[in-house]
Amino acid sequence: MMPANKPTRPAKAPVIAIVGCTGAVGREMLDVLAQRRFVFSELRCLASARSAGQILEHALGRFAIAEATAETLMGVDIALFSAGSAISKQLAPAAAASGCIVVDNSSAFRMDAGVPLVVPEVNPGHIPASMRVRQGGKAGGIIANPNCSTIIMLMAVTPLHRAFGVKRMVVSTYQAASGAGAMAMDELRNQTGDVLAGRPAEPKIFREPYAFNLFCHNASVDEATGYNVEEQKMLSEAHKIWGDDSVRISAMCVRVPVLRAHCESINLTLAMPVSEAQVRRVLQTAPGVQIVDDRALNAFPTPLKVSGKDDVLVGRIRLDRSQLEHPLAAPRAGELGVGVELFIAGDQLLKGAALNAVQIAELVL
Amino acid sequence: MMPANKPTRPAKAPVIAIVGCTGAVGREMLDVLAQRRFVFSELRCLASARSAGQILEHALGRFAIAEATAETLMGVDIALFSAGSAISKQLAPAAAASGCIVVDNSSAFRMDAGVPLVVPEVNPGHIPASMRVRQGGKAGGIIANPNCSTIIMLMAVTPLHRAFGVKRMVVSTYQAASGAGAMAMDELRNQTGDVLAGRPAEPKIFREPYAFNLFCHNASVDEATGYNVEEQKMLSEAHKIWGDDSVRISAMCVRVPVLRAHCESINLTLAMPVSEAQVRRVLQTAPGVQIVDDRALNAFPTPLKVSGKDDVLVGRIRLDRSQLEHPLAAPRAGELGVGVELFIAGDQLLKGAALNAVQIAELVL
Repeated sequence: MMPANKPTRPAKAPVIAIVGCTGAVGREMLDVLAQRRFVFSELRCLASARSAGQILEHALGRFAIAEATAETLMGVDIALFSAGSAISKQLAPAAAASGCIVVDNSSAFRMDAGVPLVVPEVNPGHIPASMRVRQGGKAGGIIANPNCSTIIMLMAVTPLHRAFGVKRMVVSTYQAASGAGAMAMDELRNQTGDVLAGRPAEPKIFREPYAFNLFCHNASVDEATGYNVEEQKMLSEAHKIWGDDSVRISAMCVRVPVLRAHCESINLTLAMPVSEAQVRRVLQTAPGVQIVDDRALNAFPTPLKVSGKDDVLVGRIRLDRSQLEHPLAAPRAGELGVGVELFIAGDQLLKGAALNAVQIAELVL
Repeated sequence: MMPANKPTRPAKAPVIAIVGCTGAVGREMLDVLAQRRFVFSELRCLASARSAGQILEHALGRFAIAEATAETLMGVDIALFSAGSAISKQLAPAAAASGCIVVDNSSAFRMDAGVPLVVPEVNPGHIPASMRVRQGGKAGGIIANPNCSTIIMLMAVTPLHRAFGVKRMVVSTYQAASGAGAMAMDELRNQTGDVLAGRPAEPKIFREPYAFNLFCHNASVDEATGYNVEEQKMLSEAHKIWGDDSVRISAMCVRVPVLRAHCESINLTLAMPVSEAQVRRVLQTAPGVQIVDDRALNAFPTPLKVSGKDDVLVGRIRLDRSQLEHPLAAPRAGELGVGVELFIAGDQLLKGAALNAVQIAELVL
């Protein structure tokens, strides 16, 4: 006999779409879904009309790429967007209105008041409880994935902010080609090969030559303040994610001839004096953070060590002696200071983009 | 008829020696002597026993390289040493005692109380009046050439220190392979070629892989403070050159995959509030400094722009908004702040080493 009430239908695994599946971040999203055994009932690989019809071969399957349109996004539960701001602005609002949860890797909506900007280890609570994948429901919405440099910085600094309070933060970045996409990575490789072969290197994506060179971040620079858009993002996004705009932040963003991971030199002024040991203790238990800090071996975070890794690596953990009361006095065990320095590395394509987006998708299941 | 008094014999041009003529800096020293039309009566190219007997071809002439010894330094008026601390310690004191003026590019004597540490644009007066090349005199002595990162930093910051007073300076460096010598430059080129060809890169000089990678400076790290020797040099040498150890300095030194010029991201706290225009005015007339700072074109100092150039390039000149009273207020024309940021680039082999040494030699003529 049938029971009076129909049994609850087992929740159908969600329909996932990747918008921008041919880009550097899109490809990593596929890898991250596979590596984390993300369960889906269908995976749609979407891209521009140019790529539509091509076949994408991946461990997850053999996908016919379709053009990203309102139609191909119909019925999608979670769409991971990484195809640039223009595409996000064009397609994400309608998809969200029709019930899709859009995790958007572009900067299009990050600072919008109604859009949560989320690093899962930092502010998962910013995602409203209503924004969950529901069977047949209309729980759609947009969640923004922060800028890569911001994510990597906040992974290391948030635990210290919570424990001691960060009053001021001065950051200099060492950013990889990957932040500007797969073609920028190719430009670095190709130009470097040209220079080694004695051929002239031809800048295409970046204004400056890239082989064996570095340059201030290519984002446009505000005429009034001298800060570029990347540097402004690190300030405004950190304020939004922390829900605290009292923290003083200045960033100098620099593109270095590295392929896929960012480093940052961070100088903090804390609200209270701390010992180096206290800082280490906090970082040792911080989620998604791994300490790489061997003074005797001179082994610290590097782009290569973190490439392909989920964690943000933190090293050069030390008191900033310029902020000690007596900066030239001999160091004492257990001494206290309000200044702390770190050198960190994070995989721009993973924690800086694809991994963070998939982690957000996991939060809305 | 002969005059009663013999005419003063025209001063004989000095005998110059380059110790370490086969190294990256030694070769640049020859170029700089040629480019500045430095007048000498004899130029001796000295190096290790390994190179002795080889012929060095240069625009200045064809030189048979001799081993650097007390004997081959006899009769030399000015010796430019760039063969490492061990050779400097072994040969410089005796040469100086016998009347030679040694300009030493190593760190061997930089912090010795009796040894002037000189950037000609900053503290030429530290060279005692007695230390001049004299015919047959015994005016010898040692003058130390500062660390390359220190020279480049002080070229840009000293004019601001004189005008406004620098209270604190936080620096992150982007240092080229050249700072570790010609073999390090080869290692970067070779490893990069290997990686592009899909071969494994084999670190030899540096512990860390260098191709498309970066790493904290290879100098040994103090176990107690966490600062490496390069970072300590930037502090102690700046204090000595400025004759002022009240300035608070913290440096994070990083080696990037660039061949021959260093960059530095500099955050200053000044003793008085200044406008951006005031900072620009001071830097516009600073000797050896060139402003490269076009916000509209995103054109700022880079290693390639400064390679082969004498000047230090300074850009990203701006008020540090994290040090403004109201950091989030809209920028106002002419606003004042105590925080100033710069991004600078200097040719490590020229102003950071060979050029500075030859400029010192010019001061003692």
